[in-house]
Amino acid sequence: MRIAVFQGAPQPLDLSGNLQRLHQQALKAAERGAQLLVCPEMFLSGYNIGREAVQQLAEAADGASAQAVAQLCRTQGIAVVYGYPERAADGQVYNSVQLIDAQGQRLGNYRKTHLFGELDRQQFSAGDAPCPLITLNDWKLGLLICYDIEFPENARQLALAGGELIVVPTANMAPYDFICQVTVRARAQENQCYLVYANYCGNEGEIEYCGQSSIVAPDGSWLALGDREPSLLLADLEREQVREGREAYPYLSDLRRDLHR
Amino acid sequence: MRIAVFQGAPQPLDLSGNLQRLHQQALKAAERGAQLLVCPEMFLSGYNIGREAVQQLAEAADGASAQAVAQLCRTQGIAVVYGYPERAADGQVYNSVQLIDAQGQRLGNYRKTHLFGELDRQQFSAGDAPCPLITLNDWKLGLLICYDIEFPENARQLALAGGELIVVPTANMAPYDFICQVTVRARAQENQCYLVYANYCGNEGEIEYCGQSSIVAPDGSWLALGDREPSLLLADLEREQVREGREAYPYLSDLRRDLHR
Repeated sequence: MRIAVFQGAPQPLDLSGNLQRLHQQALKAAERGAQLLVCPEMFLSGYNIGREAVQQLAEAADGASAQAVAQLCRTQGIAVVYGYPERAADGQVYNSVQLIDAQGQRLGNYRKTHLFGELDRQQFSAGDAPCPLITLNDWKLGLLICYDIEFPENARQLALAGGELIVVPTANMAPYDFICQVTVRARAQENQCYLVYANYCGNEGEIEYCGQSSIVAPDGSWLALGDREPSLLLADLEREQVREGREAYPYLSDLRRDLHR
Repeated sequence: MRIAVFQGAPQPLDLSGNLQRLHQQALKAAERGAQLLVCPEMFLSGYNIGREAVQQLAEAADGASAQAVAQLCRTQGIAVVYGYPERAADGQVYNSVQLIDAQGQRLGNYRKTHLFGELDRQQFSAGDAPCPLITLNDWKLGLLICYDIEFPENARQLALAGGELIVVPTANMAPYDFICQVTVRARAQENQCYLVYANYCGNEGEIEYCGQSSIVAPDGSWLALGDREPSLLLADLEREQVREGREAYPYLSDLRRDLHR
């Protein structure tokens, strides 16, 4: 499966412009043979936009923006993972990501469970369920969002359930470059799975995003690594690599689950 | 607390020679102000020595070698962590590490719980308990051995219990350099604790050890990093760094334990 990651500067509050940018990137990614395009956290609305704007821009997981994304997925023949503020049935707003496939089907939706400091807590409620495994083109994948990946438990849970690929829209900023450079590689290697980390570059208010989006192989090596400029990263994933990796590094079967609470 | 790590080539089967080397390194480390010296996995006997030799060289945790180490700790006024084959009361042989303080007291003993492939399984029984926290010079520390650190659950368990320092004697070989370069840094950062990784360099039979022993700060940066040659690494640890790190990166309190089995 060929995967594309769009790393760009956030365009806060510009919902229609962001849908247009998503359309352009999906076109570009599809032309280059990608079957899945991954965008950053809160891509549709911007991330550092404040509680009021989040409340105004939040939509249901099957709302108008989701329908627009589904339409562009069908048109370009590509699946998309994107972040957006989700208005739930109970009225709460979540920091969510959604996967829509090339037929326009909503395959999975995940609400960030591990909120990052006051920035997240002022804007969002915390999701209360891990991401279930999603099947896309025969791949078993799980979604996490930004801070979630910094906790090894979250990636591990997906891998133990059979996850072969972890997709992580993020909005990671200075001075947290360590996460881009070290943590995401460790997560892939310790679970022997692929990992896709889609970040912003540029600024949003006082926040300086640190770019360095990546596609990481099960051995922890970079298949693609962005710098701090806008870019479209691409890499080919091979399921055989996951199977072989888990034979050579049997972490999931060697893990002594009896010793951990 | 000043910590020293001895990275040297293994001297298989040479118990008395290894005790002598330990004495020399303890002298050197103490002269340079270290309060704790950490040596590699199975330091007293060598690691890749085969089941028969392991059976012959195994000793009780309070056996003759432990008494010799306690004596040199008292003489040099330094605490030591060292690896050795442990003969337990039930007759089983474990891949163990022991911490003896500067007064010659045996403060803690840990049996490797996560055995590495056939190499470990042919030689040892697996320990069946996590390492309890040990207090040394007011520091709360935990012991892990080699492959144990590759599982995030083991370090996490120590950190959640209050561990500020994780000490890891190891015998890590080519082609597993990734562990030295990426994994140990991720473990320190994700738990906001210090981590000491004491490896061999040189060869032992067909095994080529990859050196790169390290002392890692709670932010994941290297305070000391060895290459592939024998060396004595030194670094100063400050407990304040752990406290400040856990305020700035509140992973242990932000972790949603309710979401993980």
